[in-house]
Parts: sequence; structure tokens; C-alpha cells
Amino acid sequence: MDKLQSVINRIRPLDQEAMRRAQARQDNLTKPKGSLGLLEELSVKVAGIQGVAQPRIRDKVIITMAGDHGVAAEGVSLFPQEVTVQMVYNFLRGGAAINVLARHVGARVVVVDLGVATDLEPHPELLVKKVAYGTKNMAQGPAMSREEAIQSIEAGIEIVESELSRGMDIVGTGDMGIGNTTSSSAIVAALTGAPVADVTGRGTGIDDERLAHKVRTIERALAVNRPDPADPLDVLAKVGGLEIGAIAGVVLGAAAHRRPVVIDGFISGAGALVAAGLAPQVKDYLIAAHLSVELGHRLVLERLGLTPLLNLSLRLGEGTGAALGISLVEAAVKVLDEMTTFADAGVSEAVE
Amino acid sequence: MDKLQSVINRIRPLDQEAMRRAQARQDNLTKPKGSLGLLEELSVKVAGIQGVAQPRIRDKVIITMAGDHGVAAEGVSLFPQEVTVQMVYNFLRGGAAINVLARHVGARVVVVDLGVATDLEPHPELLVKKVAYGTKNMAQGPAMSREEAIQSIEAGIEIVESELSRGMDIVGTGDMGIGNTTSSSAIVAALTGAPVADVTGRGTGIDDERLAHKVRTIERALAVNRPDPADPLDVLAKVGGLEIGAIAGVVLGAAAHRRPVVIDGFISGAGALVAAGLAPQVKDYLIAAHLSVELGHRLVLERLGLTPLLNLSLRLGEGTGAALGISLVEAAVKVLDEMTTFADAGVSEAVE
Repeated sequence: MDKLQSVINRIRPLDQEAMRRAQARQDNLTKPKGSLGLLEELSVKVAGIQGVAQPRIRDKVIITMAGDHGVAAEGVSLFPQEVTVQMVYNFLRGGAAINVLARHVGARVVVVDLGVATDLEPHPELLVKKVAYGTKNMAQGPAMSREEAIQSIEAGIEIVESELSRGMDIVGTGDMGIGNTTSSSAIVAALTGAPVADVTGRGTGIDDERLAHKVRTIERALAVNRPDPADPLDVLAKVGGLEIGAIAGVVLGAAAHRRPVVIDGFISGAGALVAAGLAPQVKDYLIAAHLSVELGHRLVLERLGLTPLLNLSLRLGEGTGAALGISLVEAAVKVLDEMTTFADAGVSEAVE
Repeated sequence: MDKLQSVINRIRPLDQEAMRRAQARQDNLTKPKGSLGLLEELSVKVAGIQGVAQPRIRDKVIITMAGDHGVAAEGVSLFPQEVTVQMVYNFLRGGAAINVLARHVGARVVVVDLGVATDLEPHPELLVKKVAYGTKNMAQGPAMSREEAIQSIEAGIEIVESELSRGMDIVGTGDMGIGNTTSSSAIVAALTGAPVADVTGRGTGIDDERLAHKVRTIERALAVNRPDPADPLDVLAKVGGLEIGAIAGVVLGAAAHRRPVVIDGFISGAGALVAAGLAPQVKDYLIAAHLSVELGHRLVLERLGLTPLLNLSLRLGEGTGAALGISLVEAAVKVLDEMTTFADAGVSEAVE
């Protein structure tokens, strides 16, 4: 808890002077003012985050957190629980979507076991931060203890700190865990007060019948546990997931160390919502990669005050959307850094 | 005209068998079916375009067409006409937004003079295909002759053919020309029948007063010239631009040679609309990079039957949006090519 509190205390507002200078430079580049839209805004935001007028992004990292969910026993997913561990091995072999997309954008993928239900074989690229062998079934009682929830967040902070030492100018969040849209919907319903049916989607692609069952299961979990909406740690502990707590930790840790955080889809959004509940200032450090088709993601982005960069009907997770988002942020920063000014190019300015 | 007609005759439907096989592979990759949304659709589309089940994209090209517009004399832009040539030099020095974004996505930029109002100094990376020293003022008479319109389209086809010999797996369109949103709005109004005010935007960022003047100027150009909506060459000649004709030529040439064409913003959209008027089948070969803030772009995309990949409030042109779009298409194709199947990864499939 000391680590968590000290990281929260360390989060500062964006650097307004760096942002002012970045905006002034944008306005002198050889293009009509504002004509690169969100790319211009992104570059100014990253200037404020990094605290420099001409930011650069070299080391790009996607952290993919894996954890199992006791609620999977309720039959809320199309896939059996064993898929969590199978997909972790797939990540380590480089054959999953996140590997392909991270390679495409030049990011490294850090795979972390926060709470997979079985022990994993050691692998040089697997980070083990196991808090428990999966959460308990939230439909019957709390998913985890408050202490475990804090441990999962602190694990995320520790990962940020160790990745910073390897070089990390921007970080994207990712997740893997059968049952974790169920947990995320419960978190979002608890923290926002929205009806469960309004924030519960089809996850891996369930049909109407199973969706109705998923909604009822989440309603039961909320009724059994009565999480306190004003206490994000209570919500995370009672209906959350270990990988979701770790995502919240990445958000907090990256904000404390002034690095932009590119949020993937719905599960990452739920983690960011927990982080924003603990430290509202983190919102300034967040960039929403995309609008997921998972019902409820739009509400999460609204609550975080974020405009998604992409709308590609993605619903995979793993950090796949974040990878594409990171590339757009990098593009935005390069525009600010590498374009020529009107004066340097000898191009006439607008007659206004 | 022979070249134009023979290219139109060469355009074929997409390869349905390649698309079927690409879709079958997508459905066996280690992710829930359909969970990569538009990326999956894009990969299947490129399979159909290239005519192979597992397409690859290596050589990426952005063709940025420059031309001047006589209508600039009416004061429809914030910038003086000399900016067209100044920006061409900026492209050749690598300091413009398109250079930065093309480098970011690993594409080469081909800069072409279709109709800049002055002679350009020779440069190894400048392609000169000058049809005229700018168009004439369409507010007073036809922008160009029918013969010049055809020449501009055939120039675009020739550029495609020469770039294919250097390697071109995908092509993005781009434009530079002070006054060319005015010409594009006139084209779109003429071809779709939409009221001029509904398809005329602020271009480089003009105010309300100048926007009203721009609308009146376009209305005058349409009244003076009476372009035939059923004859795209007549529309292009009377109210079009040389660079816009060349963009239409790139679309036709790329479709004839089975290469995907990533359309940039409003001006490129107007060029694509001319191409689709000449050969409706080209629509299958088009990918819309983004939704521009330029009024009228949405209608263009609707008429072309395209869903934009990005919505970043861009309005710069040059091919900037196309560059970002190309990277997304490449990502889509890599997912299909590089991901592991369920069987190969030993991952359990969905229980349906």
C-alpha cells in the first residue's frame, strides 16, 4: 500500500509551458493550422506528458497481463479457461495477433502472469508476478481480498519501473484472461452506476442466450458482494481481476513517471477506470487507442474523457488496438519533430 | 484515349476464390472469429485484389500529384497560388507532413508535376508530367479541354505503370494544389447532384465570409460550364483539376493491375469518383484511409461504398491520411499472413 500511495502522490499535472511551446511549433509547420487534427493534439499532449516541447518516442512497450477468473466456471465465455494459459504460450512463441501487430509498429511485448490458474513453464520473456492462481468466483463471493487487489496494482507499478530501466517512452496496455469481459463489465457497472445490461457485451462472441446469462451472473456478483462505488479498491477486489488490477498499476506507474499510456479496449478501460478512481489526474496521461465493439466501452471512454483514435470494430484485447494506437502517437510526435517550418522552407504563410 | 479505354477494359472483379480461402484462414487463427473487425475484412479484400489467399505488402508507394487552379484567382483559398510550387520543393526536400508520415510507414513518395503554374527546377525525385501550366479559371469557362482531361488521367496511368516496374504492392493517392478543394467540390456537386453548399468546406481554413464566396464561385462555375453529370470526362474537363485527373488515372491503373488503392481525403475522393464514373468496378479496389473534416467527403465515401479506417479530423491532403491508412492495411495483411492457427498453437477452439 505504501508503494501505491507514494506513486499516486507523485502524479503531477501536465507541463503547460511545454504544451504551449509545442503548439507554437505546430502552428509554424508547413501546413494549414490545425490541418492534422487529432495528430496535432496528440503531439501537444505528449509534450505536456513528457515535459519537453519537442518530444520523441523511441522505445515502445506493450504490457500484456494474463490472469484467470473464477467466474469462468459460470459459463460466461465461448472458450474454456485453459485458453488463458495456451494463449500465454502463444504470445511467448510470437504467433498471436499482439505479436504480429507489435512487430509491425516496432514495439516490444512484455507478457506477465498475474494470476493464471496453473504454473507456467519458465521462459526468458515471461514475467511472473503471480498474486494468486486466478480469482475466486465473484458470483459466490469476493473475487479476491483487498490485499490481493493492492498487490496486483503494485505489480503493475513494478513492471513499469523495471521496463523504464530498459527504455520505455510510451506504453500500451493489454490483457488475456478467459472471463475478463465479465469482470470488466462488473467493474464498470459498479464504478459508474450504469445498468449491467448496458455495459455487458458479447466478449469472445457469445449468443443472445449466453449474453442474458452473463448479465444475470454479473448482477448476482454485484448483489452478493455489494462493492462500494466510492472505493475503487473495494470494487477491484470484489468483482475485478488480477490482470485488471495490474493494468491499473501500469496506468498509475506510467503517469507518475510521465509516460503516455495507450489504453487498449474494454478490459484495459476498466483497469484505467480503477486507476482514475484512485488518482483522477491520470486521465491526462491516457490516450484511447480505439473504440471497441464491446458494449460499455463507449461509456468508459466518456468517463475517462477520451476520444478514441481508431474505430475498427476490434474486440480482441491483448493490446492489439494499443499497438496500432502507439504507431499513431509516434506519427504525431514525428510530425511535430521532423516537419519544416514555413520560414525554413521558404513557403508563404496564410493571408489572414 | 486508347490507353484510357484499354485500361478500363482490363479491370476485373475481385478473385472470389482467393477471398474465400483468406476468410477460411482468418477463421482458424488464434483469436475469436471476427475479433479483429475491419482488419480481417481488409485482409480478405486485399486477397481478392491481389488474387492470392495469403497476400503480402512490401513495396508501398504514395503518389502526390501537384497542379494549379485558375480559380485560385477568385480568392477561394487562404494561401497564394505560389504555395503550390513552394510545397512541391518542400516535398522534394523531405520537410512536409507527407514526407514524415511516409517515412514513418515505410512508403516512398513519388512527387509529380501535372500542372504547376511555373516550371520546376529538375530534381531526381520529381516526375514531370505537365499537361498545362495550371487550369483556367472555371468561374469564367472550362478549366481545361476534354483532351487535357484525358491526358491528365493517362498520366496517372503511366505513373502507375512505371512505379509497378520499381515495385508497388499498394498505392496511396495524394494531392497538392492551391484551390483544389474548390475544384473538388465542383466535381462532387456535378457528379452527385448534391447542392454546392452541402459539399463545400473550409479547405485550408477559410472563414464564413470566404466560404460563402467559395460556394458562389462554384455555383457560378457550374452555371457557366454546365458539365454533364453522366460524362465524368466532361465534368473533369470543365470544373476539375489536372492533379485530380491524374488521381483518377492512378485509381484506374492500379485497379487494372490488381493493386489496392488507399484513397486520401476529399480531393483524392473527387478523383476516385471520376474514376468510378468511368469504370464502376474500381470501387472494389479502393480503401478509404480516413474521414476528412472537409464537408462533402462523407458523401463521396458513401457514393464509393467505402468505410473510412481513421477519423482523426485531418484536412491536409498530400497523401497524409493515405500513409496512415497504408500502414493499417499492411497490419491487416500481416495478421493474416503471420498469425498462428489454433491447430498449430495447440489452443482450444470455441465451444459453440
